[in-house]
Amino acid sequence: YRPEREKKPLVGVATGLAWTEVGGEIMFIEATKMKGKGSLVLTGSLGDIMKESAQAALSYIRSKAEDYGIDPDIFSQVDVHVHVPEGAVPKDGPSAGVAIATALLSLFTDIPVRMDVAMTGEITLRGRVLPVGGLKEKILAAKRAEIYEVILPAKNKDEVMEELPEYVREKMTLHFVDNLEEVFKIALVREPKPLKEA
Amino acid sequence: YRPEREKKPLVGVATGLAWTEVGGEIMFIEATKMKGKGSLVLTGSLGDIMKESAQAALSYIRSKAEDYGIDPDIFSQVDVHVHVPEGAVPKDGPSAGVAIATALLSLFTDIPVRMDVAMTGEITLRGRVLPVGGLKEKILAAKRAEIYEVILPAKNKDEVMEELPEYVREKMTLHFVDNLEEVFKIALVREPKPLKEA
Amino acid sequence: YRPEREKKPLVGVATGLAWTEVGGEIMFIEATKMKGKGSLVLTGSLGDIMKESAQAALSYIRSKAEDYGIDPDIFSQVDVHVHVPEGAVPKDGPSAGVAIATALLSLFTDIPVRMDVAMTGEITLRGRVLPVGGLKEKILAAKRAEIYEVILPAKNKDEVMEELPEYVREKMTLHFVDNLEEVFKIALVREPKPLKEA
Amino acid sequence: YRPEREKKPLVGVATGLAWTEVGGEIMFIEATKMKGKGSLVLTGSLGDIMKESAQAALSYIRSKAEDYGIDPDIFSQVDVHVHVPEGAVPKDGPSAGVAIATALLSLFTDIPVRMDVAMTGEITLRGRVLPVGGLKEKILAAKRAEIYEVILPAKNKDEVMEELPEYVREKMTLHFVDNLEEVFKIALVREPKPLKEA
Amino acid sequence: YRPEREKKPLVGVATGLAWTEVGGEIMFIEATKMKGKGSLVLTGSLGDIMKESAQAALSYIRSKAEDYGIDPDIFSQVDVHVHVPEGAVPKDGPSAGVAIATALLSLFTDIPVRMDVAMTGEITLRGRVLPVGGLKEKILAAKRAEIYEVILPAKNKDEVMEELPEYVREKMTLHFVDNLEEVFKIALVREPKPLKEA
Amino acid sequence: YRPEREKKPLVGVATGLAWTEVGGEIMFIEATKMKGKGSLVLTGSLGDIMKESAQAALSYIRSKAEDYGIDPDIFSQVDVHVHVPEGAVPKDGPSAGVAIATALLSLFTDIPVRMDVAMTGEITLRGRVLPVGGLKEKILAAKRAEIYEVILPAKNKDEVMEELPEYVREKMTLHFVDNLEEVFKIALVREPKPLKEA
Ligand SMILES: [Ca+2]
Ligand SMILES: [Ca+2]
Ligand SMILES: [Ca+2]
Ligand SMILES: [Ca+2]
Ligand SMILES: [Ca+2]
Ligand SMILES: [Ca+2]
Ligand SMILES: [Ca+2]
Ligand SMILES: [Ca+2]
Ligand SMILES: [Ca+2]
Ligand SMILES: [Ca+2]
Ligand SMILES: [Ca+2]
Ligand SMILES: [Ca+2]
Repeated sequence: YRPEREKKPLVGVATGLAWTEVGGEIMFIEATKMKGKGSLVLTGSLGDIMKESAQAALSYIRSKAEDYGIDPDIFSQVDVHVHVPEGAVPKDGPSAGVAIATALLSLFTDIPVRMDVAMTGEITLRGRVLPVGGLKEKILAAKRAEIYEVILPAKNKDEVMEELPEYVREKMTLHFVDNLEEVFKIALVREPKPLKEA
Repeated sequence: YRPEREKKPLVGVATGLAWTEVGGEIMFIEATKMKGKGSLVLTGSLGDIMKESAQAALSYIRSKAEDYGIDPDIFSQVDVHVHVPEGAVPKDGPSAGVAIATALLSLFTDIPVRMDVAMTGEITLRGRVLPVGGLKEKILAAKRAEIYEVILPAKNKDEVMEELPEYVREKMTLHFVDNLEEVFKIALVREPKPLKEA
Repeated sequence: YRPEREKKPLVGVATGLAWTEVGGEIMFIEATKMKGKGSLVLTGSLGDIMKESAQAALSYIRSKAEDYGIDPDIFSQVDVHVHVPEGAVPKDGPSAGVAIATALLSLFTDIPVRMDVAMTGEITLRGRVLPVGGLKEKILAAKRAEIYEVILPAKNKDEVMEELPEYVREKMTLHFVDNLEEVFKIALVREPKPLKEA
Repeated sequence: YRPEREKKPLVGVATGLAWTEVGGEIMFIEATKMKGKGSLVLTGSLGDIMKESAQAALSYIRSKAEDYGIDPDIFSQVDVHVHVPEGAVPKDGPSAGVAIATALLSLFTDIPVRMDVAMTGEITLRGRVLPVGGLKEKILAAKRAEIYEVILPAKNKDEVMEELPEYVREKMTLHFVDNLEEVFKIALVREPKPLKEA
Repeated sequence: YRPEREKKPLVGVATGLAWTEVGGEIMFIEATKMKGKGSLVLTGSLGDIMKESAQAALSYIRSKAEDYGIDPDIFSQVDVHVHVPEGAVPKDGPSAGVAIATALLSLFTDIPVRMDVAMTGEITLRGRVLPVGGLKEKILAAKRAEIYEVILPAKNKDEVMEELPEYVREKMTLHFVDNLEEVFKIALVREPKPLKEA
Repeated sequence: YRPEREKKPLVGVATGLAWTEVGGEIMFIEATKMKGKGSLVLTGSLGDIMKESAQAALSYIRSKAEDYGIDPDIFSQVDVHVHVPEGAVPKDGPSAGVAIATALLSLFTDIPVRMDVAMTGEITLRGRVLPVGGLKEKILAAKRAEIYEVILPAKNKDEVMEELPEYVREKMTLHFVDNLEEVFKIALVREPKPLKEA
């Protein structure tokens, strides 16, 4: 089974790129919130590194809440659930960081994420985007899923430019980014506005 | 020992389909709530993937509460217990997702679930229904339990149509679905109504 | 050491039947409550399946509290402790379900349990009684302890009728039951009355 | 190192009897309480069975609080710590039950425990005293520590009478008991009085 | 690396003595408190027995708070952290009990601990000091660190007197103690005063 | 991939030095805070010793809050997250203590940390700086990252002076420190001021 791309922008969902032994694959990151007490639930057979990635993504959004127009009180009033289908497939590694952060920002700002863009990259708590592996396979997976725009770590640019076949590169729009700000500008259908100072 | 189908629609119960080494079997998902503080208890020798499935099912219902006419405050005022008999038989995998979600929606809306319908399918946090394994064995198990209507993932349709013997297919009503909305329309005796906007 | 049967009905105690490698044995389920905050403590070297059984028994009583005349608020105001002597003997399996549920209902209604009745059977969250193993050995253990009345799962009736020697069956009163309601009617010295609707 | 008996009655301490590969030994059970929130801390390299014993002992005292003149509110206002020196020696088994219950009752009633009495026996949640092992070695250990009065399970009486050498039995006062009530009558310097009904 | 003794008395620090395969060593016990909610954090690669020791030390101080002039309410208003450098060196065993209790009493009374005294000994919940191992090596380690006054368990006196070379014993002041009261009289720069009865 | 030094001073970030099998490396410690309830999250595949280091660093800052002009109430009103990229690389050991403490003090005082200074050293709860390993490799890593000022434990001075090649030592400014006070004076762009007494 291979997931298919969604057509229309969606709130709380982002399209990541996984790299497995048998090649690349697109992978949806689903985030939802519900009235609650501030807990974070992570499901989808996620390994420790991927869970830490999700924690870092949430902390990034929480610590920058006001810059993105999010009332910081909301985080103690809801529970957040991040799920990565398919549930039985073990997943790990830090490279879903940008996609998780994007899904979470969308969830809390109610701004939809473009479903015709896929993304990969480790994030840091400051929003830096770090290089990851399997770029070629991931880009090919996006293309196979008919997603022709991909967000990638700037630090992987040389490697991508070298290894990616000419005929693929021509069909794709590749965004090389250094930080989450750049990711959000590309992936969200509009930019979040900061809360006004009282 | 083999469970027998129930005759009348029941609140908080749904009929799932398990696939074991010795064939398919029907499996009741039992959900109950009681005055409490918002905890979720999962019993029945469930493996991690099945527990994550139940968490995703509950998050789905909680995040869509108002659409289903459920006061979102209820979830912090009750404890929920999901049990899957028989208690000593280890169970795992994501395919009980649709049945767990159905039992939970019934529990919180007080709308009974049809007991003459069985179901299987992984769910995602957005309510998508993903394909699962063991379809043929599961459909045969439903038939053996005198349940002639089964809800299945749309993504499994080709496989089912190909593998299921003609004489079985003729006796069964098979519903191929893409999302939980379709499941609930078939499995609940009536549709839940959204809370009115104030 | 072999426990001996109690003579008089007791509150918060029920007589279960265990099946070990060396035959059957009676086993007391002791339940007590104390001013507290709603926690459940399970002791007696209980395995995971038996602990889940106890959780299901408590959830059953909690979710039906008003039907049994129990104020649902009580469960958050007390701590419950279920202990199964002897403390050093490992115990597991789902077959103590009916005895645990009976001890708990007695504890919260203050209605004594008959000590001249022993019982075995797995329960589900809806109060169904499912078949268990070791019936012959368990019935013989009851007889040896001078308990001549035993509650058993209806689904085990054929097996019991076939395997139990004639001279034992004649001395015993065997109750074959389908659900907890039937268990409580036999085991408690009187029936609990539901809370009146306000 | 061998602990020596204390001379004067003490609050919150009881003298248990341990049975190790190299013979019997006396063992102090120390219990203390402090302003807190109802937690129970168990230290002294205790195994799971011994920890469960301590939980059962505390539940017994809590559930009978008013019978012993203890305000039930106290248990949520203090933290309880039970420690069994020596800290580095692993200890397990259910036989310290009577000594732990005695130390706890003393702690909450402020009635001192006689230090010239040692005790052994498993307890149940209802206060029954069950038989234990190593009786001969334990009685000899008491004698060696110059403790000439020992509380033992009634169910061990035959075994003790048979195995204990005549010259030891003559020097010792052996109390064979069936329940904790009898233990407390012997071990505490005076009997606790129940709270008066308002 | 070998820690050097401090010159002046310090609040919340005590000098323990460790016994390792390569001989004895002095070891600082550092305790600090901060506005909080009553939690206890233990760091320094401490094993379970040493952690239990620290819990017992804290319980001792808490349960005797008023005798030492400490408002018992403080313990629920601060978090306590006990750390034993060096962080990467695994440490275990009960012999740091007296040093931990001393550091904690100093922390809560604000009375400095003499840094020219080292100490070793297991403690019990009642404040008894029990014998420990490695006395000779520990005393030599104190001397090597230019600490000439050492507090030791009374039960170790015979062994120390026998094994310690004459030329060492002459240079050292050895205090053999039975309980924590004696330790505090020696190690703190002044005695804590009890809270006055209201 | 090798991280590059930042140019401008940053709040909540400090430059540590890691020592791996393949040499030294600079390593950013990122700390962030967000409206919360006082929890501490540690990510970056950190081992137990490094996690304990971070706890000690936070306790140090909390216990000295007023000396650094930090309102002690803040710690129960925020959650703190410390992350050390890259997420998939296991890290352990106590030597990041000084960098973690520096990042945390910066975070709570809002005083930026100089990014042209790297640092290594174990800390104790009292703020002592203890010696660590791999000094030569770490200093070379700083130089390679174009960081020419390094803070080191005073106890490592002899070793550094002996082993570091002349041509490296000449290019570097090495600060040998005994405690965190000295670290903060060098690494923060200005000194924090204590809260005034009311
Ligand atoms: Ca797949
Ligand atoms: Ca607000
Ligand atoms: Ca079966
Ligand atoms: Ca409401
Ligand atoms: Ca037995
Ligand atoms: Ca009520
Ligand atoms: Ca000993
Ligand atoms: Ca009261
Ligand atoms: Ca050392
Ligand atoms: Ca006070
Ligand atoms: Ca690297
Ligand atoms: Ca304040």
